[in-house]
Parts: sequence; structure tokens; C-alpha cells
Amino acid sequence: MSTISIIGSGSMAAAIAGRACKAGYNVEIVSRDPAKVRALADKLADKANTGTYGAPPSGDIVILAVPYSGIAMVVADFGKALDGKVIVDIANPVAPDLSGLVTPHGSSGAQETAKSLPAGAHVVKAFNTIFGHVLIRGGRLDAFIAADDAQAKACVSTFVERLGLRPFDVGGLPMAHTLEALGLMMIGLAKNGAGTWDLAMNVNIG
Amino acid sequence: MSTISIIGSGSMAAAIAGRACKAGYNVEIVSRDPAKVRALADKLADKANTGTYGAPPSGDIVILAVPYSGIAMVVADFGKALDGKVIVDIANPVAPDLSGLVTPHGSSGAQETAKSLPAGAHVVKAFNTIFGHVLIRGGRLDAFIAADDAQAKACVSTFVERLGLRPFDVGGLPMAHTLEALGLMMIGLAKNGAGTWDLAMNVNIG
Repeated sequence: MSTISIIGSGSMAAAIAGRACKAGYNVEIVSRDPAKVRALADKLADKANTGTYGAPPSGDIVILAVPYSGIAMVVADFGKALDGKVIVDIANPVAPDLSGLVTPHGSSGAQETAKSLPAGAHVVKAFNTIFGHVLIRGGRLDAFIAADDAQAKACVSTFVERLGLRPFDVGGLPMAHTLEALGLMMIGLAKNGAGTWDLAMNVNIG
Repeated sequence: MSTISIIGSGSMAAAIAGRACKAGYNVEIVSRDPAKVRALADKLADKANTGTYGAPPSGDIVILAVPYSGIAMVVADFGKALDGKVIVDIANPVAPDLSGLVTPHGSSGAQETAKSLPAGAHVVKAFNTIFGHVLIRGGRLDAFIAADDAQAKACVSTFVERLGLRPFDVGGLPMAHTLEALGLMMIGLAKNGAGTWDLAMNVNIG
């Protein structure tokens, strides 16, 4: 099985890395904080390694598992090292008070990230509508994907499927806005009508 | 059982009216096209009546079942007749080519509608994430609701529940934007990953 790289050492990084290791992937974890990334890799046993922050990641798929506010720095720090990679943007660009999205009109976090990446990198929006603890818990989960590059999208779709999720293509990268709004809607749902964060959104067909 | 009023005579008007009649509501249907509204009321049997376009609706709940582009005219034509009513906005304010939302930055269709209504009317966003043919088909369906006025929201929540749907409060009226984005996301899903319009979004808890 191939290698995937994860930049970040928080709860989403841990949740995706955990499922990827179980699915047989070699997982490279990279972070500005070597101690945190080492601790996470140790927990994940021998399928996980640590990489060098800012150096070209080993995986063809690179997951940006940092908060939206931290993406610009990561992209600047890696620069050309991300060229040619499939970049998975999992961020929910929500205001600190969770009242709305912080993205510009007519754009999305994923599109803003795409603008700052090397031209040969392909951004795929995914995972932002699945809470980290729900991803760890497992069970039937649907994963929504938006991207412009068909090959990059197919690549992430296969990855997601091997992780035991059901991938659903929602369209091109501009549809990332709808997924980011869905992320915010789920936060609203958790705080209001559902009364729990232990929730997922599923597609019911037919 | 109380009366609800529906302004519109299209597929969503028919779907909501059909379920409301079955649930025992008296349904008043109102439209600028008397022939269409008469034909719809006749199909729905003796629980449905037609009302006069522009006159005060009989129901405390008034469902605006017209396209987003038609709401401004309806609101202007009814004017003060909608004062004190619970106004249910079911519109998906999507561009004709379905590429995005047409609402202003930081707002939503429901909030724009609220601005043009009499001060005593309370807008509730609901039903926009359920396709009309799916609403007719039945089965387990989740209905997402956003509103600022707690009493209006509770009122619509009860209505939705009596229709056999599971209501979920996602927060205040600004959260209508997330529901409108979810409506667009479902269109993208139907055209892309799901490959069918016969789909619904459900909440999976625990």
C-alpha cells in the first residue's frame, strides 16, 4: 500500500492517521512540533513515521490537518515542496464564535488554499463534514468530496473508500463552499437540535 | 387541526399540501394563477381550499412555495396581510446554471425575505433540503430548521413533525445560509456522486 502524508498533529490528524494505518497505508506525519508528531506516530505503531516539516512529503496525497487559520503558514513553509501533490483540505473556515464562515464572497477555504499553492498541486476538499471523534468511532460514514482535477478526486475517493467511508462526489472545487457551510450547519445542529456532537450526515438514496 | 396556508402551486406546494392534508390539516392554497391553484386543491380532496391572492391568509403558518426569484413580488403583493404570520421560506436561491448561490455576502435568502416582510412576521427556513418528489415518496426524512423567533420555530417544528418528518433545529436565521448551501450541495450530489435525484440527507446520531 502507498504512503500518505499528514501535516498536523491534532485530533483530525490522529483520526485520519489511525484509520489510514488500520487500512494498511504507510502514514507520514509532519508538524512544526516534533515532540507532538513523535508522540502521535508512536501511538500508531509501525505503520507511522515522522517527516521533516517543510521538506517534500513522501506521500502523493498530503492532508492539511491544521486549522484554517494555520493553512497559509503551512503552505508558505512548504512552498514548492507541495508541487505535484494531491492536497486534501479538511478545514472548516468558521469564525471563532461559530457564527459564520470567514471566507470571501464567491469563494471557499479550499479555493483560497488552492490560490496559494504551487500550480502543479491539486486541491481536494474532503473530511470537513466528519467530526474527528466520529471518524475514530467508525460505523457507516459518508464522505463528501469536491475538486476540479478528476484524477486527484479519484485518488482521494479511493483513499476514502479504503478507510471504510462511502465517498460522494459533489462537484468541482467551488462546491467546497457548500461543504464548508455544511460543516458549520453540523456545528449548529450539534449545539441546537441534535444536542450531541456524536453525529454524522448520511445520504439516503431511494 | 389548524389551517396552514401555502402560497404557490408548483411541485413543492403540491408535496407539502399533500402531506399536510394527510396529517389532518386544513390547507389553504393561494396563487396568482387561479386555475392552477383550483386544480391542485381539487386533487387534494376536501381538506384543501383556495384562498384569494394578496388577501390575509387564513393559516397562522404561511408557506412561501415559490421560487426565490418570485418571493419579492409575493411579499410586495401581500404586504401587511402577512403581518403576524409565521412565514416558512423553502427557497433555494441558486443561480440558473446551479453554479452557486445568488444571495449577498453574509446573508441568506431567508434573511433577505425577512427584511422585506412586515415587522410582525417571523421567518423560518425549512423544507429547502428536501426534494419535492422525495417529500411525496415519504420514508424517514429529516427536516432542518433555522429561525430567530423561538415560538415561530417551535410552531414549524410541530408542523413538520405532524407531517411525519424529524425536525432538527440548526440555530438562528443566519444559519439559513448553511441550509441554502446544503440545498446546492444536494443538487451537486444528485448530478455527480449520487447519480440520482432520489436522495435525502439524514442525521445519524451515536
